[in-house]
Amino acid sequence: MKILGIDSSGLVAGVAVVEDDILLGEYTTNYKKTHSQTLLPMLDELKKMIELDLDSIDAIAISKGPGSFTGLRIGAATAKGLGLALKKPLVEVPTLAGMAYQLFACDSLICPIMDARRNQVYTGIYRFETKDCQGEAKRSLSETKEQCAIDIRELIDELNGMGQSVVFLGDGVAVYEKTIREFCKVPYTFAPAGMNYQRAASVATLGAIYFAEGKSIDAALHQPEYLRKSQAEREKEERATES
Amino acid sequence: MKILGIDSSGLVAGVAVVEDDILLGEYTTNYKKTHSQTLLPMLDELKKMIELDLDSIDAIAISKGPGSFTGLRIGAATAKGLGLALKKPLVEVPTLAGMAYQLFACDSLICPIMDARRNQVYTGIYRFETKDCQGEAKRSLSETKEQCAIDIRELIDELNGMGQSVVFLGDGVAVYEKTIREFCKVPYTFAPAGMNYQRAASVATLGAIYFAEGKSIDAALHQPEYLRKSQAEREKEERATES
Repeated sequence: MKILGIDSSGLVAGVAVVEDDILLGEYTTNYKKTHSQTLLPMLDELKKMIELDLDSIDAIAISKGPGSFTGLRIGAATAKGLGLALKKPLVEVPTLAGMAYQLFACDSLICPIMDARRNQVYTGIYRFETKDCQGEAKRSLSETKEQCAIDIRELIDELNGMGQSVVFLGDGVAVYEKTIREFCKVPYTFAPAGMNYQRAASVATLGAIYFAEGKSIDAALHQPEYLRKSQAEREKEERATES
Repeated sequence: MKILGIDSSGLVAGVAVVEDDILLGEYTTNYKKTHSQTLLPMLDELKKMIELDLDSIDAIAISKGPGSFTGLRIGAATAKGLGLALKKPLVEVPTLAGMAYQLFACDSLICPIMDARRNQVYTGIYRFETKDCQGEAKRSLSETKEQCAIDIRELIDELNGMGQSVVFLGDGVAVYEKTIREFCKVPYTFAPAGMNYQRAASVATLGAIYFAEGKSIDAALHQPEYLRKSQAEREKEERATES
């Protein structure tokens, strides 16, 4: 099974191609260019380097959100365009699950946080479960708290209540590190570079699991999951209430 | 601190640039081209995409071996050439430690295996240790067994003796999966795509830790660590013994 993974939900632009247990290629940047300048050129470059026939892929795994509204739209447009042109299904991977999957077999709770401004983060709480399969300890990512937008202090209180050690990752760490250090009462760790931001290989690998479970959709049906209204929508509603 | 990471020790060719906690860019391929066709073009492409001034890097982290003799030599030549031209030091990262570092905060022993032919693997045994730092649970990679070339059955016996669960990764998994399933008596897991082969981001991140500890060398001094004699050397010795 061959899966193309795309993530442009945050600061990172990433494309990856996974075939069964092998990452055939991955291209990741976290740089001040916009995703419209990077994502398709990176895919085109990777495609040439690994001589990828796009017709040979089985599905496109897309980081579905939450995240940057513009980033999610660029990712969605890219994935839908490719899916429609190539007649390939899309697999929607919740952005925070994709991030958490990088901490494979982690001994702690995994808590990705993306800065959502106004003291809020997009977050979820995950852990890896183990199931014995004739000696093999199969791991799967389990969702303890579904992805949502929440006040950072409320999240920390919830983690404190759970009483387990936690690994934080995501662009929210740089923003809320001081708050975490001050209020987090459970042992906490910050994931290091290379596994602390979005990663297309993780989206592709988790997408392959979902795809095998039959969780794919027609490209035309994909919509990003913003979790919140955009600033323009909020302001429009506020004006309507005032008038 | 900005570190360029390079890994061409096995089937993967990878380059990555890490600055403090951020992976600025990474390009990875695992494809049937030789590293001489991929490594420098990938670095050149990544450099352009993230507008990297090579003079701005502090050091070059190189996956020092063991691995493919030709792959290691291409990586060494690339890292030494860049280091000498740019007047930057090199940081040597043991290939198997770089591989293990991808399983950050793993709940099990980590055992990367690279196929070394004749029923042998290049391997090492690692785990993550936790140290409390005023609430923060700092993690560091600890070496339980130094990297070496060893018979796969001997390795499995050693792991059985340790009595702890283990996560396997590396190109040796595809070759020795059946042997592992048959003889491994402790719970075992195979790492998924995206974290089961060499990764330059991991070499760069671990390299940054070593560099901060003062473990860098002059580029002229770097030599790959083969762990074994090449086939040509062995045959020469055999001929000398016979005559």
